[in-house]
Amino acid sequence: MTSEAFSIDPWGVVEHTLDLPGQAAAESVLTLSNGHIGMRGNLDEGEPHGMPGTYLNGVFELRPLPYAESGYGYPESGQSVINVTNGKIIRMLVDDEPFDVRYGQLRSHRRRLDFRDGLLRREAVWTSPAGRTVKVTSTRLVSLTQRAIAAIEYVVEAVDGPARLVLQSTLVANEQLPTAEADPRAAAMLEAPLVAEADIAVGTKAALVHSTRHSRLRVGAGMDHVIEAPEPYDVTAESSEDNARISVTLTLKPGERLRLVKFIAYGWSEVRSLPAVRDQVLAALTAARFTGWDGLVREQREYLAEFWEHSDIQVDGDVELQQAVRFALFHVLQASARSEERAIPAKGLTGTGYDGHSFWDTEAYVLPVLTYALPGAVNQALRWRHATLPSARERAAQLGLAGAVFPWRTIHGEECSSYWPAGTAAFHIGAGIAAAVVRYVRATGDREFDRTIGLELLVETARMWRSLGHHDPAGRFRIEGVTGPDEYSAIVDNNVFTNLMAQSNLRHAAEAATRYMQEATALGVDPEEAAAWRDAAAAMFIPYDERLGVHPQADGFTDHQFWDFAATPPENYPLLLHYPYFDLYRKQVVKQADLVLAMQVRGDAFTDEQKARNFAYYERITVRDSSLSACTQAVMAAEVGQLDLAYDYTAEAALMDLHDLGGNSREGLHVASLAGASIALVAGFGGLRDHDDALSFRPRLPSGLSRLAFALRVRDSLLTVEITHDTTTYEVRKGDPVPVVHDGERLLVEAGRPATRRTRRLEPVERCVQPPGREPTRRHTQGGHPPAAVDPLPAE
Amino acid sequence: MTSEAFSIDPWGVVEHTLDLPGQAAAESVLTLSNGHIGMRGNLDEGEPHGMPGTYLNGVFELRPLPYAESGYGYPESGQSVINVTNGKIIRMLVDDEPFDVRYGQLRSHRRRLDFRDGLLRREAVWTSPAGRTVKVTSTRLVSLTQRAIAAIEYVVEAVDGPARLVLQSTLVANEQLPTAEADPRAAAMLEAPLVAEADIAVGTKAALVHSTRHSRLRVGAGMDHVIEAPEPYDVTAESSEDNARISVTLTLKPGERLRLVKFIAYGWSEVRSLPAVRDQVLAALTAARFTGWDGLVREQREYLAEFWEHSDIQVDGDVELQQAVRFALFHVLQASARSEERAIPAKGLTGTGYDGHSFWDTEAYVLPVLTYALPGAVNQALRWRHATLPSARERAAQLGLAGAVFPWRTIHGEECSSYWPAGTAAFHIGAGIAAAVVRYVRATGDREFDRTIGLELLVETARMWRSLGHHDPAGRFRIEGVTGPDEYSAIVDNNVFTNLMAQSNLRHAAEAATRYMQEATALGVDPEEAAAWRDAAAAMFIPYDERLGVHPQADGFTDHQFWDFAATPPENYPLLLHYPYFDLYRKQVVKQADLVLAMQVRGDAFTDEQKARNFAYYERITVRDSSLSACTQAVMAAEVGQLDLAYDYTAEAALMDLHDLGGNSREGLHVASLAGASIALVAGFGGLRDHDDALSFRPRLPSGLSRLAFALRVRDSLLTVEITHDTTTYEVRKGDPVPVVHDGERLLVEAGRPATRRTRRLEPVERCVQPPGREPTRRHTQGGHPPAAVDPLPAE
Repeated sequence: MTSEAFSIDPWGVVEHTLDLPGQAAAESVLTLSNGHIGMRGNLDEGEPHGMPGTYLNGVFELRPLPYAESGYGYPESGQSVINVTNGKIIRMLVDDEPFDVRYGQLRSHRRRLDFRDGLLRREAVWTSPAGRTVKVTSTRLVSLTQRAIAAIEYVVEAVDGPARLVLQSTLVANEQLPTAEADPRAAAMLEAPLVAEADIAVGTKAALVHSTRHSRLRVGAGMDHVIEAPEPYDVTAESSEDNARISVTLTLKPGERLRLVKFIAYGWSEVRSLPAVRDQVLAALTAARFTGWDGLVREQREYLAEFWEHSDIQVDGDVELQQAVRFALFHVLQASARSEERAIPAKGLTGTGYDGHSFWDTEAYVLPVLTYALPGAVNQALRWRHATLPSARERAAQLGLAGAVFPWRTIHGEECSSYWPAGTAAFHIGAGIAAAVVRYVRATGDREFDRTIGLELLVETARMWRSLGHHDPAGRFRIEGVTGPDEYSAIVDNNVFTNLMAQSNLRHAAEAATRYMQEATALGVDPEEAAAWRDAAAAMFIPYDERLGVHPQADGFTDHQFWDFAATPPENYPLLLHYPYFDLYRKQVVKQADLVLAMQVRGDAFTDEQKARNFAYYERITVRDSSLSACTQAVMAAEVGQLDLAYDYTAEAALMDLHDLGGNSREGLHVASLAGASIALVAGFGGLRDHDDALSFRPRLPSGLSRLAFALRVRDSLLTVEITHDTTTYEVRKGDPVPVVHDGERLLVEAGRPATRRTRRLEPVERCVQPPGREPTRRHTQGGHPPAAVDPLPAE
Repeated sequence: MTSEAFSIDPWGVVEHTLDLPGQAAAESVLTLSNGHIGMRGNLDEGEPHGMPGTYLNGVFELRPLPYAESGYGYPESGQSVINVTNGKIIRMLVDDEPFDVRYGQLRSHRRRLDFRDGLLRREAVWTSPAGRTVKVTSTRLVSLTQRAIAAIEYVVEAVDGPARLVLQSTLVANEQLPTAEADPRAAAMLEAPLVAEADIAVGTKAALVHSTRHSRLRVGAGMDHVIEAPEPYDVTAESSEDNARISVTLTLKPGERLRLVKFIAYGWSEVRSLPAVRDQVLAALTAARFTGWDGLVREQREYLAEFWEHSDIQVDGDVELQQAVRFALFHVLQASARSEERAIPAKGLTGTGYDGHSFWDTEAYVLPVLTYALPGAVNQALRWRHATLPSARERAAQLGLAGAVFPWRTIHGEECSSYWPAGTAAFHIGAGIAAAVVRYVRATGDREFDRTIGLELLVETARMWRSLGHHDPAGRFRIEGVTGPDEYSAIVDNNVFTNLMAQSNLRHAAEAATRYMQEATALGVDPEEAAAWRDAAAAMFIPYDERLGVHPQADGFTDHQFWDFAATPPENYPLLLHYPYFDLYRKQVVKQADLVLAMQVRGDAFTDEQKARNFAYYERITVRDSSLSACTQAVMAAEVGQLDLAYDYTAEAALMDLHDLGGNSREGLHVASLAGASIALVAGFGGLRDHDDALSFRPRLPSGLSRLAFALRVRDSLLTVEITHDTTTYEVRKGDPVPVVHDGERLLVEAGRPATRRTRRLEPVERCVQPPGREPTRRHTQGGHPPAAVDPLPAE
């Protein structure tokens, strides 16, 4: 898929033609999801497809993890997201010819995903091989208000003569999937994971209930229909183990229309019985039918209107970036809105990449955005982590550690990483969870959460750090044998990011234990334990290379050999597919921001001069083979005054999937990179930092943007920030006064009394150098990006 | 198996009863092999068995290596030694009852493996369930002179009445094997790896030819028989795909004997045709039959008489140790005598442990012993390495390195290690090969080898080191991201052992390139390249911890947390089965001598004070979870004057398999540890070092030994060294004068003029401390080891 696949539109994504080789990536981009149900943007008729996909958050199958040479503590089984019963399919027969865009003539085909109403609209005019032309208009939604519900309005019109039509609206389980790819990042596909338990079909309604073979999860899918069509028409219902079908048969005269509304409901459970799951699905269907298509659409619009009011980011001067950041926010919302005590996977529910697993990305990239946009989703996501504490404690015990060790990758809470140097060893995930707790509590003031869920997460992660590290004879607290964010190093000593994050974790746990003494005591924390946390935090060893005046990413890093970038051809990126880990690990080459991320999240631990020197040093050796890197580099580039470079990185993070920059959007969207687009703008150009109680800003704009405005929820208030090259205006739209820091100046912003300050002008500094061929695309030198003609489908 | 299984006998191993649970270990101990054929000590009748085993050096099957998360450069398939056609089986029916020691009554059962004639004798008196008693005497050999041949003399006598007997002498392919164990060190068993190609049976002769399914190796096995029995008797021959059988039927009167001599021949080839392999086997059989049983036995005795003359180690004062060291030398001989351009596996041909792979053990432990005992075997073993250079060059290229990277584990030359941090990263194997080349050439003066095989091995390994390491800005040459011998650390920087071995490798390669300019030029070496090797060697970085006055095993090692030995219960050893690698790697705990091995093989790089301090430091944290450790600790304990501790370690190395100290002798013997017993005595108490042209000795004896004598082949001379507490005598038994260094004094020892010097008395020093529970068994405090009654079977 190229950047030409979609035209630029500030409030939507428009696809003008059907690019079959690019379909898999387009399906990811056009996914509808509410965080509970995910439906890839497959065509209504099911085929052709890149990869059919319907996912339910938390529904996975177990598979054995093989080891040619096993080792103690290696996870024995993995968890893979599965393609559940497909409820999206509406097939059509036109005069005995199946509607299939690969045959006959596709006269026009347009799709538009609209960020304001959350609808995926499609309009196709197709002439069958026999010469009959029909116009199909379908509109799909996955409800943000009714968690178990999706719906499709499918309208077909005869264009050039009477058309004899059969519509088959189906539920299909155990769809055949394309074979897996060799790329280790592609998910292991699982064949026929569902075992049939029940099927019913009556009237316009049908349902299938299955269980997963090994993980024993019960999954129900149901559908009901409203049909509007000229009489006479016939409706039949049938079902078998893996199929349920409602067929509508009729003949349309030219100009006549058949309108079918399909309500789809899903339910699943680890524990509930077959009748319970079946009835749960049928009940959801009844409610949806009661709400009706128009009602569902109206609820969707209202939900999204509120979301945009509280979360929109406006970018003036670059309409492509404007589109991209809204696309990003929309998908971050879709991944998390209704996940409700389930994980937010790295790909959301847009594909099977990474097996549907959640990583540290959630807490490190997604939750920082949601904290100020949809704090309830943060609460839910952290409750999910909290619910997995039994697994995490068990894992810690297995590893000989105290407290809790959260899994590097998981769906259900158990560690699913089979390569521990880049999995289990990345203990920093624990500190990321702790930091997300602290940020959420600061932003919301949710003391009840703080006292219960938050406290326990802080305590158990602090315990882990205290047992993982040790004091050396010089009294320094060291954390050894771990892997930081950069996966081109592994099993290192005193990774600066890890040690700084652990330091915060230990401090915050000690503070929380003081704040909630009674609750902490109930968790077994005594004053000695809390003191040990404070002491370890105070003594935390942060390596520094005096000769170079930079922080080594970990002990000895700056002594290592530099990667030979000159001898690395462009096609050898990403490096991990072309060079052995052994070679990557021992050299100075960085997959993704690590020390630079430490400077963002623990900026208080570095001087301005160190930040500038460190940033320049790591820019030279960072290849951005991870989509998690560009946004962080954007933030720190902005902080050290390299605004144009920050702008380039921002665009890269935002366009990761719209332009398929990683070449793997077909497996699902890069949700953390999408969240990163927002981080790049708000923390980069807005300069937002939340180390302290008051949010602080250091606004600065690159020359390519004329205005940046964004909204943040802070406690019960809504704060907006509007930045131009001249001024920055803080305004409280509703709620209590909000303290902010503008470029070091403390302000208390009250509702109705916007505060305007001068936006600081920065002296231009020399642009840092990246490895040859790995420079971000320059946004300025592309000739000003004339916005492509915006030609959306009309909103209804 | 306990130490009581075998009684003590200075020239053999005697088993007095049949301990069925201990059979698997006994089968390993009683293996007969010539380095080409290996036959575990299974009972003639095939069952019961611990693990049936017949191996041909180099015959393996391929199996896929699975990875849950794959990576660039991971080997896709492994090689596993297979149990080839079993030619050992002679079954017997006594009056319709199969001779099976599990039924009826086994009145006596004794076996003796004799180190002087290489025969495994067995004597059993058995009463069948029906009450008929027979006496079976069998003698087995695997010929050291006729490489393709094994033979069995099987004599059965009726004891208490007429016995109707059927003897079935068979060849069995694709024997059913016991199921694999969960222990990762146990070999992956392979089911039915042989595909039948031909079977013949005629007269007293039969043969089977098979090919391995995936590795496509053709394996032929044949047998012929000489029968001596009272007339009348009947002989039939039959064969099918996986079976060939010669049956002898007769009735023996009391006192009558049936004598069956079975000649067994093996042949295999990667390239030869079916008729060629079949005929090769039949030809070998014809030659063996021509030599006859008595001829084979005589040849065996002569071969071993010469071996012991050149290689025996005499230990006075500890008959158990005397037995153990001869057992060790005998098995080292068996593993290597006729391997002839094939690998010497870690388990020899005694079992399927480690999949039959060869590791660095060969060059680091086995060849140093063979160099002075059987130098021709060293030549052959290094020729095998040389023959694998194409694979090693390919591997280097895949890893982005110059020269050759030899595999961590292999049978055929390709890397078979699926866990690279403890496999491929152990680059020191290359330096070990280079060191073996240098030692062999020094000891033999084999210039032809030096100029061809040796030079190329030195050049290709030096090239690897030069490309693996780099100079830091201070000009130090660093080797990073590698794993040293100690497998409880991995992926470290500047492992001292590795860097010192690489330094020697680079120097010796540069010297060889100067010595053989013309040949080096043909290999592409120019003066600049050789200079770069010398420079890297001279600039080699060896980390040193000034605060502690010890060498860290690798950068930062001495800063790491100490393992909590106090909290480690005895049943949690070996640690790798009870703790994750992540925890082992990041702490100060050592599986096996690493820095201590560096002090043995590169003693010139350490002062005496450093040796003493380093030894004491690493003794505290070395758990000896590898059988490769005790012998090295013995050598260095002796060097630093801890003679009793050295004695304890020597006994541990020597008794590894006789006492099954590792609990895994059932999977095969620890050939390197057995070689290590010899190293412990010769390099430990003899103080032999071969850094320089003249062998140097620093003799010293522990109080438990009254005399130690050993023989060494040096060039074409035979040097003997006899050590008592008072004097040491060097004698050249034949050949040219041999220069030696006695305690710093240079001597030239001439034939017929023994040189006697005073054995230095050492001041007692404080015994070092080991981790609690990991002290070696004290040899002195066990009450003087009264030798058990020696009760061998009479030699014929």
